[in-house]
Amino acid sequence: MEPTVAVIMGSTSDWDTMKHACDILEELQISYEKKVVSAHRTPDYMFEYAETARERGIQVIIAGAGGAAHLPGMVAAKTTLPVIGVPVQSRTLNGLDSLLSIVQMPGGVPVATVAIGKAGATNAGLLAAQIVAIHDLTVAEKLEERRLTTRDQVLESSDQLGL
Amino acid sequence: MEPTVAVIMGSTSDWDTMKHACDILEELQISYEKKVVSAHRTPDYMFEYAETARERGIQVIIAGAGGAAHLPGMVAAKTTLPVIGVPVQSRTLNGLDSLLSIVQMPGGVPVATVAIGKAGATNAGLLAAQIVAIHDLTVAEKLEERRLTTRDQVLESSDQLGL
Amino acid sequence: MEPTVAVIMGSTSDWDTMKHACDILEELQISYEKKVVSAHRTPDYMFEYAETARERGIQVIIAGAGGAAHLPGMVAAKTTLPVIGVPVQSRTLNGLDSLLSIVQMPGGVPVATVAIGKAGATNAGLLAAQIVAIHDLTVAEKLEERRLTTRDQVLESSDQLGL
Amino acid sequence: MEPTVAVIMGSTSDWDTMKHACDILEELQISYEKKVVSAHRTPDYMFEYAETARERGIQVIIAGAGGAAHLPGMVAAKTTLPVIGVPVQSRTLNGLDSLLSIVQMPGGVPVATVAIGKAGATNAGLLAAQIVAIHDLTVAEKLEERRLTTRDQVLESSDQLGL
Amino acid sequence: MEPTVAVIMGSTSDWDTMKHACDILEELQISYEKKVVSAHRTPDYMFEYAETARERGIQVIIAGAGGAAHLPGMVAAKTTLPVIGVPVQSRTLNGLDSLLSIVQMPGGVPVATVAIGKAGATNAGLLAAQIVAIHDLTVAEKLEERRLTTRDQVLESSDQLGL
Amino acid sequence: MEPTVAVIMGSTSDWDTMKHACDILEELQISYEKKVVSAHRTPDYMFEYAETARERGIQVIIAGAGGAAHLPGMVAAKTTLPVIGVPVQSRTLNGLDSLLSIVQMPGGVPVATVAIGKAGATNAGLLAAQIVAIHDLTVAEKLEERRLTTRDQVLESSDQLGL
Amino acid sequence: MEPTVAVIMGSTSDWDTMKHACDILEELQISYEKKVVSAHRTPDYMFEYAETARERGIQVIIAGAGGAAHLPGMVAAKTTLPVIGVPVQSRTLNGLDSLLSIVQMPGGVPVATVAIGKAGATNAGLLAAQIVAIHDLTVAEKLEERRLTTRDQVLESSDQLGL
Amino acid sequence: MEPTVAVIMGSTSDWDTMKHACDILEELQISYEKKVVSAHRTPDYMFEYAETARERGIQVIIAGAGGAAHLPGMVAAKTTLPVIGVPVQSRTLNGLDSLLSIVQMPGGVPVATVAIGKAGATNAGLLAAQIVAIHDLTVAEKLEERRLTTRDQVLESSDQLGL
Repeated sequence: MEPTVAVIMGSTSDWDTMKHACDILEELQISYEKKVVSAHRTPDYMFEYAETARERGIQVIIAGAGGAAHLPGMVAAKTTLPVIGVPVQSRTLNGLDSLLSIVQMPGGVPVATVAIGKAGATNAGLLAAQIVAIHDLTVAEKLEERRLTTRDQVLESSDQLGL
Repeated sequence: MEPTVAVIMGSTSDWDTMKHACDILEELQISYEKKVVSAHRTPDYMFEYAETARERGIQVIIAGAGGAAHLPGMVAAKTTLPVIGVPVQSRTLNGLDSLLSIVQMPGGVPVATVAIGKAGATNAGLLAAQIVAIHDLTVAEKLEERRLTTRDQVLESSDQLGL
Repeated sequence: MEPTVAVIMGSTSDWDTMKHACDILEELQISYEKKVVSAHRTPDYMFEYAETARERGIQVIIAGAGGAAHLPGMVAAKTTLPVIGVPVQSRTLNGLDSLLSIVQMPGGVPVATVAIGKAGATNAGLLAAQIVAIHDLTVAEKLEERRLTTRDQVLESSDQLGL
Repeated sequence: MEPTVAVIMGSTSDWDTMKHACDILEELQISYEKKVVSAHRTPDYMFEYAETARERGIQVIIAGAGGAAHLPGMVAAKTTLPVIGVPVQSRTLNGLDSLLSIVQMPGGVPVATVAIGKAGATNAGLLAAQIVAIHDLTVAEKLEERRLTTRDQVLESSDQLGL
Repeated sequence: MEPTVAVIMGSTSDWDTMKHACDILEELQISYEKKVVSAHRTPDYMFEYAETARERGIQVIIAGAGGAAHLPGMVAAKTTLPVIGVPVQSRTLNGLDSLLSIVQMPGGVPVATVAIGKAGATNAGLLAAQIVAIHDLTVAEKLEERRLTTRDQVLESSDQLGL
Repeated sequence: MEPTVAVIMGSTSDWDTMKHACDILEELQISYEKKVVSAHRTPDYMFEYAETARERGIQVIIAGAGGAAHLPGMVAAKTTLPVIGVPVQSRTLNGLDSLLSIVQMPGGVPVATVAIGKAGATNAGLLAAQIVAIHDLTVAEKLEERRLTTRDQVLESSDQLGL
Repeated sequence: MEPTVAVIMGSTSDWDTMKHACDILEELQISYEKKVVSAHRTPDYMFEYAETARERGIQVIIAGAGGAAHLPGMVAAKTTLPVIGVPVQSRTLNGLDSLLSIVQMPGGVPVATVAIGKAGATNAGLLAAQIVAIHDLTVAEKLEERRLTTRDQVLESSDQLGL
Repeated sequence: MEPTVAVIMGSTSDWDTMKHACDILEELQISYEKKVVSAHRTPDYMFEYAETARERGIQVIIAGAGGAAHLPGMVAAKTTLPVIGVPVQSRTLNGLDSLLSIVQMPGGVPVATVAIGKAGATNAGLLAAQIVAIHDLTVAEKLEERRLTTRDQVLESSDQLGL
């Protein structure tokens, strides 16, 4: 099946974070591809990748990067597909640098930024699914069911406090 | 025409920021509605608004708030539509509080966060349009044209330096 | 005995922090209940919980949450009981996000915010007790005694320096 | 009438902020007194003031200070009445120093901290009222009414957007 | 004369900052060109510009940008010429976002970052001159003279204190 | 011998940091006393301690504390002896809260603040010695010798790089 | 009269801040000299100045600087006199850069750091006076009187609230 | 061979970071020397070292330091050679203090600042090489080859995701 979502990241070291986006897409049975695409080390490939994404059937791009995280913003500059940016937690500044480098985009080129680290990657997968779900009732229903399951888990979890 | 995008904000004082989202939607001829919906002052209305958005035909919700900005995240908790959060610049902490309150969502409930202030609101409008454009070729073309126009404006602007 | 204080938290993972609030309430023999109530995963339950707290005899609500910590503020939006917010230390930003999300509430809906993490949870328990103690002399006396005991422990502790 | 709430501040220059706490108390007809009490310039008076507050009938103390804001925490060290701390916006660091100096209290001596600046002062007044309202039905009702009024104002305010 | 230094910036609004780099280059009689090159609005032109800079005789590139400032890092990814990054002061976060987006580059692609704003732009011009001066004695001498002049101005300036 | 320097700290847990101040004083043979004095848990003892320090022959007070670190500033409010504040590294905010709570004193009551943690404690001991040395030539000479020894150690240490 | 205190600053533009240190020294009749000494623009003069300060009778050096504020620390590296550092408020980062550049000195070379800006400069003057006062009873008495005057001013100032 | 690049650092404890700069220089066969030069503990040696660097054939100085990191800026004040500053990660503030102390230099004395920690040290080596390469084609070619190798490594690395 042609991938609907692209999950890209600046380095293999980002995989520990970004796999949580892929986990969600698999759980919701949304086809995706995953690639290492580095803004600074493979700039030409990044541009080509972004430029051809739409014609290859990609609907949403999830891009994770850390530090001076330019990947999401530069991909967003080369496509009008929605780009979701995941700030990967950096060694020295805990991902605050990643977050600001991704979210503070100038007017004209948006990046849909999520939380730093694992929670953000999970939410990037869910946000991509929510976008897909606008026109895909199957995904929409799976998302609703997921919410109900999560809700029920929380409602039952009070019993575990202080055991 | 039924609105496709909802632009909501916590207070009328957020309008100076959020109008930039509306300007984009008008420019791209995407139908929208605008409302004041306060997480803290109209919590029940917020829940009802979020819960019924999908059935009213809304595809994307743009929510702007400042300080302890709970509106985007709480709306996101009550719908599986994509929610775009705009951190409004706060008086004391320049919007850093707004940004962190919106972007640092826990795994399970994403908010697509954009930049603090005016640039973020503009990009919220564009991001909503990019989501709509996945299945709306007219909007997709307008977005591409907008990019070309912007590009040309930049290319010509070097002549103005130092005049 | 009907609970006087409610201790709620967004997730079972917050228990390691929030148990310090419960420890204080047990020490001071103030009745309490503890629950997992998630702003984002159980929003309807949160609203119902907050709305009915006063009629169930609750006098003070202690709410702990981390990251984009919306629980204390949203509970405060649904009750006029005093709500004490405990910023749970977050993985990436050390709880600065939790703190700002809780404390920077807009005028109209206060949250009584305490320190990040364990010390904050302990103080949430004590603050609840101080509020209860305004009309409960037994608790007031216990609080005074606790202060004296703590004072004496400090006064004696110089002898341990550098042993 | 004996004051129920004390509103104290480190300097007359804090009045522009702290008057918003007093405005709320007047609106809700809660008796209060207002004083300049400086932790650093009148330390003995501060101690005496805090020590005698309970016996003078004070139920809640609101203390505002900026910079290395020690007033709320030191008053809290000298009384077991609930103390609400208002971080006044500082000239150089926008009140982040005030906030951290007030909220990061060690376990044992809580300060109920509210937002930086005017919104925080307003909420300090409301929080004091909420504490008083636990045993004062008249205040409790006024608070509920205030919430309804505020809600209605918000619900009507959408009409003003973009006019 | 062929330009030795390129001064580029993301927008005409950066000129107020970046002109201070040009002032230095003029003062030291180093040939330069100035252009608006936007990472996000003219990505292809940026790549072409960076790729051809060396063959056009450019020795050093000075790039100024604000917010999620990707221009210096992306230019650096497309050339092995030294790239100096100037963080332009941003509206909301005072340039902290610009600074982190520019300086926190991953290993492999350096950007020589200078201070936020006007002082940084001045120093970008001087740093470019210092690099040129390694093999250009005339510039080296001018830089030494400039230091002596500055020194003498400071030494004489004590007389102006408190007049 | 009567102590010349007082080393006080808010809790025995601060000893790991503050012992570095004591180590310096022992090395330089300056008499000192060490005490646990808590601003929040022993406020009256703190005031009495500060008030009587000068008459007991103390020339300099070193005070270490963490979090909402009020000890140095409050001691400084009760004596006109020089007070050196050591920000102890806090668990959640790495000592940034301690630093701001100590250094941002209002005009009128100075605290001589040093670095966060161990380096700061060492420097507090040295600063106290430098103050004592103004009128004590023996200490002044020891400080000069210490500088020379340190210098020589650094000069020789290049040989160890990369072994 | 030979100066007892040296007040130095990196630039004439720091005078607006540093004059508050001089005002205090004049008020307390402590002899002082004031100079512009720039770490970066007059490094040799700075070293000579610091090296000869003690022999010229200086007892305390007050050094103010902004941004990458190296003056206090470098002067401290060249003398064992106590050096008080005043972080001057910087244009872009509000003095946080100045503060960290001054206070975070490595173990071995202390700088007595005070608050950012005007309050810090005032306190630098007072701290210098407190150091002088250890062996100068006249200054010690003036400091005590100043405290009493300030106290009385505060005690009377409550009457002005809300007029 | 006479060294072309100088790699200096404030302490042997900085070697773990700074060795990454040396690794690059060795890889690219650029001659260098490495020294411990401390701004605060060997100020005279630092000045002499900086002053004589050019005449000894040094073309670029790489200086690493942590905390109140004055080494790069002070060396830059004593030479007009390009100085690259590496902010070493500090214990308490993660290198944010190091970064601001190095990058926020006043107009007149530039420091080419790179990222905090290991990535920054690597990039300092590369930036020095890029400066050398302006007039050294062999180094220029090696830098180009390094870029190609890195690019190819990234392009192949996608295969490793999720194995």
